[in-house]
Amino acid sequence: MGLKSFIEVDLNSHFPLENLPYGVCKPLHGEGFSPRPCVAIGNHVLDLSVIASSGLFNGPLLSKSSDCFLQTNLNKFVGLGRPAWKEARSTLQKLLSADEPTLRDNASLREKSLLPMDKVEMLLPTAIGDYTDFFSSMHHAKNCGTIFRGSENPIPANWFHLPIAYHGRASSIVISGTDIARPKGQARPVGNSPPYFGPSEKLDFELEMAAVVGPGNDLGKPVDVNEASDHIFGLVLMNDWSATTLSPWIVTLEALEPFVCDAHKQEPHPLPYLAEKTSKNYDISLEVHIKPVGHEQSSIVTRSNFKHLYWTLTQQVAHHTINGCNLRPGDIFGSGTISGPEPESYGCLLELTWNGTKPLSVNNSTRKFLEDGDEVIITGSCKGNNYNVGFGTCTGRIVPSRT
Amino acid sequence: MGLKSFIEVDLNSHFPLENLPYGVCKPLHGEGFSPRPCVAIGNHVLDLSVIASSGLFNGPLLSKSSDCFLQTNLNKFVGLGRPAWKEARSTLQKLLSADEPTLRDNASLREKSLLPMDKVEMLLPTAIGDYTDFFSSMHHAKNCGTIFRGSENPIPANWFHLPIAYHGRASSIVISGTDIARPKGQARPVGNSPPYFGPSEKLDFELEMAAVVGPGNDLGKPVDVNEASDHIFGLVLMNDWSATTLSPWIVTLEALEPFVCDAHKQEPHPLPYLAEKTSKNYDISLEVHIKPVGHEQSSIVTRSNFKHLYWTLTQQVAHHTINGCNLRPGDIFGSGTISGPEPESYGCLLELTWNGTKPLSVNNSTRKFLEDGDEVIITGSCKGNNYNVGFGTCTGRIVPSRT
Ligand SMILES: [Ca+2]
Ligand SMILES: [Ca+2]
Ligand SMILES: [Mg+2]
Ligand SMILES: [Mg+2]
Ligand code: NI
Repeated sequence: MGLKSFIEVDLNSHFPLENLPYGVCKPLHGEGFSPRPCVAIGNHVLDLSVIASSGLFNGPLLSKSSDCFLQTNLNKFVGLGRPAWKEARSTLQKLLSADEPTLRDNASLREKSLLPMDKVEMLLPTAIGDYTDFFSSMHHAKNCGTIFRGSENPIPANWFHLPIAYHGRASSIVISGTDIARPKGQARPVGNSPPYFGPSEKLDFELEMAAVVGPGNDLGKPVDVNEASDHIFGLVLMNDWSATTLSPWIVTLEALEPFVCDAHKQEPHPLPYLAEKTSKNYDISLEVHIKPVGHEQSSIVTRSNFKHLYWTLTQQVAHHTINGCNLRPGDIFGSGTISGPEPESYGCLLELTWNGTKPLSVNNSTRKFLEDGDEVIITGSCKGNNYNVGFGTCTGRIVPSRT
Repeated sequence: MGLKSFIEVDLNSHFPLENLPYGVCKPLHGEGFSPRPCVAIGNHVLDLSVIASSGLFNGPLLSKSSDCFLQTNLNKFVGLGRPAWKEARSTLQKLLSADEPTLRDNASLREKSLLPMDKVEMLLPTAIGDYTDFFSSMHHAKNCGTIFRGSENPIPANWFHLPIAYHGRASSIVISGTDIARPKGQARPVGNSPPYFGPSEKLDFELEMAAVVGPGNDLGKPVDVNEASDHIFGLVLMNDWSATTLSPWIVTLEALEPFVCDAHKQEPHPLPYLAEKTSKNYDISLEVHIKPVGHEQSSIVTRSNFKHLYWTLTQQVAHHTINGCNLRPGDIFGSGTISGPEPESYGCLLELTWNGTKPLSVNNSTRKFLEDGDEVIITGSCKGNNYNVGFGTCTGRIVPSRT
């Protein structure tokens, strides 16, 4: 049985009292509203700036630092660290529970603090200083290697020794729902012909999740792999296509704790700085749907799971900082495309259509890659006993290149 | 003959009235001073927050937006664009000139606004949202290609079709004078042996300059190459080693205008989106000095020039945005290592010692790569008629890896 809130939460909701994911919203109606932190509960958001201003964060840590909820992003809160996160969770679970009168019986406070989800605009939850994108799915690495270099040794040897990553661009990270213009650039399709210029012909989605960094580390001071989980606040859904799209709700590691599973076995055994006392992953079901241009309905194109990743979040943190690199609160780590072992669980069209050689049936259409007007919807959730801990959706639509 | 200020400016100074580079400083003595924008004049800094608060930015644009000088970084000012930059330059050149009494004859205002350089700490001039590092020196590309892949076709064909870049990390950009810890990581020195872990054995400097982005562009809206110079505020010195070190003073394109020179001839002719009506570069002499650990004196190791770059700043902006990528005020573009054609003008130890095969004599020592305790000093300036427009120095010292 799930926990009970005085706010009605549908059985299929992604946002019961067990979840309480954090976001940043802006009320759509009324003047002078700035962005403010909130949590999701059922199909409402609870405005944390109102809760903080009312003095209801009264635990030992947050009573002194509840101005973290008077900011326009969550950076200050996520920088406080796990003891403060646990205290906030416990305060909010109590405040929203069915048998707690403080908010339940205060009509004026409810009116001010609880808003229907369709009456707010969701914004990026943190100011992202840096964005690193890993490449942590072995199935994805193997498929890409096979497609581009052939089936002999598709995965380079170093892949098994460290979590490879590249550094992404923070400016072009956008919130779910933002249209994405097809990029233009140079390409060189055949042998020695000169490059041509034009819109991208193979535009893809990439099913990923992103971890949000909590407390950072100083330049030159690596984070120990066994303490690295204290530097991860939570996870969101991510589509890494031309820009990078994030879902608005950060689901905390606390909410994900019931869905911990064993991490992938690693062979060869990693070097000591990557060797964990206990190595864990999370069982999060993921789906991608495409709504082809001109269609009313979307159609599922893949079912994968976060647990398919080979490298863990904590190993990513340890590797990222071992050279002395400093992380800052609100930074994000993309997981890399999350492909499972079966063809039905591949995380991008490159793999699903094998570089366009096996077009995919989507509703009554077929797709090799994305076409202008196509909408991509990622969703993810964990199935508990009579409740879900879900991520909502991460959506976006391709629009033509600007001329 | 140079312009004359009522403040004494040494003939060899990098900072005469013709320069007026922008930085952000914090007074070292006294309480409650926050970082504030300033310009350099001789061996003083002029505190622009005091000038703004005194109502002396009284031109048509800045009289309405002089709060850009009440910020803790220059992002708001550089975001205003070239007309505001020109107005600020003209206001400040007049205010500091020998025959203008407003500041010259106001002892109390002078006291508040003019500080000796050794009484302030310099900070990073902008909050850097994203940092892109180009690879725009053909000599550097050729040398690296020859060292790592052999002398046949050392430069890949695509290098001549577009300004290649990689995305760097913003968090680890530090101000001149910051110690840099030797990074640790995995390496695999020979054939099939397993990787080992340890401090970097080939730690290098890279002589670069960085451009500071002014007004940005919207996601999905490329910047035309012939309008791209309006998106560049100015240049600083940069050492791209483990972290990235910047010099504190941004020299504006206005101050560099007398030192414009023709850009490199480009063959093949670039695609239309990179083809400029007039293509220009800047004649900026650059030097790198090393002070080996335990030595009192530094010794010059290379002399290069910004004009050796093949791709122009404006082509970098056009290429970076052609895929729809958005730039934001305060972003930086590294040039890539600036090597000239002669061995004495190579921009890093990798090239100067040919990957350690020809050790370099530095004072009474030799170096293949940097050793713990070595200090690297980059300096750069343009020689005018009886004045310099200089960049000051960009310095840093290697300290051992933390254990
Ligand atoms: Ca990716
Ligand atoms: Ca570089
Ligand atoms: Mg990607
Ligand atoms: Mg570099
Ligand atoms: Ni003085």
